[in-house]
Amino acid sequence: MGIDPGLAIVGFGIIEHDGQRFKTIEYGSINSPAHTDIPARLKAVYDDISFIIEKYKPDEVAVEELFFNTNIKTAIMVGQARGTLILAAANRGIPVFEYTPLQVKQAVTGYGRAEKIQIQQMVKSILALREIPTPDDTADALAVAICHAHSRTLRAITT
Amino acid sequence: MGIDPGLAIVGFGIIEHDGQRFKTIEYGSINSPAHTDIPARLKAVYDDISFIIEKYKPDEVAVEELFFNTNIKTAIMVGQARGTLILAAANRGIPVFEYTPLQVKQAVTGYGRAEKIQIQQMVKSILALREIPTPDDTADALAVAICHAHSRTLRAITT
Repeated sequence: MGIDPGLAIVGFGIIEHDGQRFKTIEYGSINSPAHTDIPARLKAVYDDISFIIEKYKPDEVAVEELFFNTNIKTAIMVGQARGTLILAAANRGIPVFEYTPLQVKQAVTGYGRAEKIQIQQMVKSILALREIPTPDDTADALAVAICHAHSRTLRAITT
Repeated sequence: MGIDPGLAIVGFGIIEHDGQRFKTIEYGSINSPAHTDIPARLKAVYDDISFIIEKYKPDEVAVEELFFNTNIKTAIMVGQARGTLILAAANRGIPVFEYTPLQVKQAVTGYGRAEKIQIQQMVKSILALREIPTPDDTADALAVAICHAHSRTLRAITT
């Protein structure tokens, strides 16, 4: 399961990978309405991702790390949401892996400076989807899941 | 209940306030060892604060906001921990209030630029403690709790 963390929108994508082929199980996004207060939004995000985790029981969860070129206020806000998302997995004993945006880009497109649209097209192609998943957060979450699958396969080969 | 959020050390302080007098119930700090991974530390912090909340069942929780003059990496780390602390209260339906360091200083010492030691001495004096609580995070958590008590009393008078 890949997660693109956020407070307003959390992207998630669940895939299966047998070392060669990918199977897409489900993907989507969770939105927390801006008009409610922060504790309620954090709880909504936590409850919703917990529901998805309970439903699909992923073996492992991969979460994208945050960009460091954002401002402090955004970093704290998204950091808070990210903490609750990681907790939802940790509370169920599911291992959590973290990847930088650079690692995700390289794993999906082979190129660390790939544009967003290139990543989205590769996600669509790798998972043989009919359309590019929307919103962007959903495509990003699937990209993180693909990155983690590649990383696992590499580790399995080299160890 | 006041909380001074952090990943390595979380301070907490539980007080009672009848509008005039303070009673100190308990205070302390939770430490998460740096040698374990982030998901495990977030879970440890969440579990421990949940235990304290279950034990004392505070009516309200007040959490200090983060300094904005920190670096992005620290902001994300502490933000993640702060998210799980807020969630621990929200999951039990306990209202969460947030105060800036400036609000806490003003409430406790009457002066927004008070030094850390002045705040600690006022906390000791207001709560009639024998010693300044240590670590600093514990004194800070009690300061946030005092700030919230004052804020509640003011709201009660003016509404």
